[in-house]
Amino acid sequence: MADKTIPYKIYLSEEDMPKAWYNLRSDMKNKPAPLLNPGTGKPLTAEELSPIFCEELVAQELDDTTPFIEIPEEIRNFYKMFRPSPLVRAYCLEEKLGTPAKIYYKFEGNNTSGSHKLNSAIAQAYYAKKQGLKGVTTETGAGQWGTALSMACSYFGLDCKVYMVKVSYEQKPFRREVMRTYGASVVPSPSETTEVGRKILAEFPGTTGSLGCAISEAVEVATKNPGYRYVLGSVLNQVLLHQSVIGLETKTALDKYGIKPDIIIGCAGGGSNLGGLIAPFMGEKLRGEADYRIIAVEPASCPRFTRGTFAYDFCDTGMICPLAKMYTLGSSFIPSANHAGGLRFHGMSSTLSQLYHDGYMEATSVEQTSVFEAAEMFARVEGILPAPESSHAIRAAIDEALKCKETGEEKTIVFGLTGTGYFDLVAYQKFNDGEMTDYIPTDEEIAASVAKLPKVPEM
Amino acid sequence: MADKTIPYKIYLSEEDMPKAWYNLRSDMKNKPAPLLNPGTGKPLTAEELSPIFCEELVAQELDDTTPFIEIPEEIRNFYKMFRPSPLVRAYCLEEKLGTPAKIYYKFEGNNTSGSHKLNSAIAQAYYAKKQGLKGVTTETGAGQWGTALSMACSYFGLDCKVYMVKVSYEQKPFRREVMRTYGASVVPSPSETTEVGRKILAEFPGTTGSLGCAISEAVEVATKNPGYRYVLGSVLNQVLLHQSVIGLETKTALDKYGIKPDIIIGCAGGGSNLGGLIAPFMGEKLRGEADYRIIAVEPASCPRFTRGTFAYDFCDTGMICPLAKMYTLGSSFIPSANHAGGLRFHGMSSTLSQLYHDGYMEATSVEQTSVFEAAEMFARVEGILPAPESSHAIRAAIDEALKCKETGEEKTIVFGLTGTGYFDLVAYQKFNDGEMTDYIPTDEEIAASVAKLPKVPEM
Repeated sequence: MADKTIPYKIYLSEEDMPKAWYNLRSDMKNKPAPLLNPGTGKPLTAEELSPIFCEELVAQELDDTTPFIEIPEEIRNFYKMFRPSPLVRAYCLEEKLGTPAKIYYKFEGNNTSGSHKLNSAIAQAYYAKKQGLKGVTTETGAGQWGTALSMACSYFGLDCKVYMVKVSYEQKPFRREVMRTYGASVVPSPSETTEVGRKILAEFPGTTGSLGCAISEAVEVATKNPGYRYVLGSVLNQVLLHQSVIGLETKTALDKYGIKPDIIIGCAGGGSNLGGLIAPFMGEKLRGEADYRIIAVEPASCPRFTRGTFAYDFCDTGMICPLAKMYTLGSSFIPSANHAGGLRFHGMSSTLSQLYHDGYMEATSVEQTSVFEAAEMFARVEGILPAPESSHAIRAAIDEALKCKETGEEKTIVFGLTGTGYFDLVAYQKFNDGEMTDYIPTDEEIAASVAKLPKVPEM
Repeated sequence: MADKTIPYKIYLSEEDMPKAWYNLRSDMKNKPAPLLNPGTGKPLTAEELSPIFCEELVAQELDDTTPFIEIPEEIRNFYKMFRPSPLVRAYCLEEKLGTPAKIYYKFEGNNTSGSHKLNSAIAQAYYAKKQGLKGVTTETGAGQWGTALSMACSYFGLDCKVYMVKVSYEQKPFRREVMRTYGASVVPSPSETTEVGRKILAEFPGTTGSLGCAISEAVEVATKNPGYRYVLGSVLNQVLLHQSVIGLETKTALDKYGIKPDIIIGCAGGGSNLGGLIAPFMGEKLRGEADYRIIAVEPASCPRFTRGTFAYDFCDTGMICPLAKMYTLGSSFIPSANHAGGLRFHGMSSTLSQLYHDGYMEATSVEQTSVFEAAEMFARVEGILPAPESSHAIRAAIDEALKCKETGEEKTIVFGLTGTGYFDLVAYQKFNDGEMTDYIPTDEEIAASVAKLPKVPEM
């Protein structure tokens, strides 16, 4: 049994919480490629972006040089309602696995949104309020981002319209009620309420939706209604910036006990959790101060890093959003109804894509049933029912810990436990009943959607 | 705005966690009346209780003199997975109410069972394991206790059979899946699987069940199956003992900042949370060292303290359990389908009943819709979606804080936030849709069931 001098849970004091977000891009030699105007093929200016996003968020989106951006006091006070989040030493999981590895996880699920999404939601709502807007629109996959945004908007008295991926809307009826309790309106996507929704429904009548579709609808509504802007829970640089609070807290907690991780693991949907968790560690790596193995975990059903293409693509299915350079399966790729709704996105953060392209991180893909096996084992020994998304990271962490068992290496593994699975019980039920299946897209399917990538002049 | 020198959340270090439970009965001059054998009318002996309960738990049940009972190291280690729980200063709620009162809540919902129930579940599973049993049976109302016990049994490799009050089983389908994920079997009660269940169904074919029915079924199964014992999540002295960890942590946290509460508020179902929260404070009051207003909050639909009778009664509907002296509405009282399933019990902890009878605490009852109004307000400003049970305490705390607003008094109010409402979304949906109703039993209804109280010789 492990020597338990390190506490089970490391909580920072509120004074130790970060006072500034860390802008990972500031330390990148190869900056992430800029967003392009799909009409002109030219980098988008702040002026062009501001009908879509709040002004201050546009500034954050475009700023790739300032290393630290102060967290406004109002946001820090809100953070104190659910942060600092614990860094947990997984003693029981280590014992169960019989591994010499030391496993830690940063648990972001101890809040009503059930995930890390609240870190960016409150920031985006704050800037929308500061700009005097009436409300915001957004998309949500698993419902975690939508819930987080509803909570943040309720706090600042903003209207909140959420387009929820239809498969999640159906699998998670109760998410809708949480959002309603916080005063939001929720529409399953694709819907008849937007032009782009009607177009997608006409082309794919039976579609269960995707984050890409829902983004198109939310953007359309934001740009057509005065006093509204669109906010996004992942992919964008601004979101990774806000989420750096995860990594900063993790690093402070580890430093406090003189712990140096060997491997850092995060699940990757649009990149918000992974980008936030790894930020300060990747910064050290970029500056040549330290080295870490950093692993992105994605579902085998939606393998952007491991089987996608690094190219400019639309962030949405409706092709009304800006073009981003990223690892993508093509914006017309509609992932299978994998239960990890938060990971069903055809693209990936430009920042993380560039870092992966430049060899600063690895990626792996895992199948759904093996993910739920890991989730069940974790729940039983660590006492937390994990979200399917987070369980992708658990799967990879267990696999690395089992490798240590074979080699006898005492590696220190840190992974991001992004949230809880309390609204994923339909998926757990399928798993409990032995009815869960795996789905891996064929090379032809991926090639077909990649063939439709937009033509963009070489930068 | 309040001076924020006290942190939003006070977390103790793991070393500051209690190493012994506090046995409130040791400080009571009028001890709670003993459990009686319904056949003989005589106090039950350890020998008579041990076919129902684990041996060590029987000892704890009968011990009303030892002030502190050591928490075994295995239990303390499990506690570290989800404890210490935060004591939260409700700055945002205070601001919303515009009250000079200072409000704190001890939040027990940051674990997968979603409530304080895990504190006693792990203790009871530990002693069952230590005794070499195969498994345990239990009842669950809202599902929080059943989930907690499933988690505890899974940790120690024990079989777990849960009888779940039918109305909760139907309103909370996903609870079942959490319990199954932890390996438990779950049966809606009353059921056809027991003699007592069949009898109740024959008499009341349309019944939505009650904790009293479910207890009868679980006890029957435990006593008829070798290697099984019955465990209970509330009412009993042993449970209040284990739950004292809530109050002990609360007191340590308050003492750390030199805070002395004026009012302590808890919701009351069987008394587990209330008894645990108030334990060390009540101890000081009993020893004449300090004075506090202590308020039990119950649903108006199930008003044991405020409208019940202090008398010996069965703990279960099937009248197979021991007799306990308590505030009761009569074991034949079947509460309306109030959504706070955890508060739908006809009786109340003997310890708390005695203390209430002796004037050491107050009680108040609140109606369901006003409880959900409080829950919604709390969720929006404090960021936690509370369980309906816990929201009874929120309602009363808000009411006390509003009185302070009128009088200008800066009272310090501490309440127990026992859990989260993530599995109560059917109830929230009803509230959101304006379809929630209140139900208050008539004097005749209560008189009818009280008239059926068992005859017991005066002690």
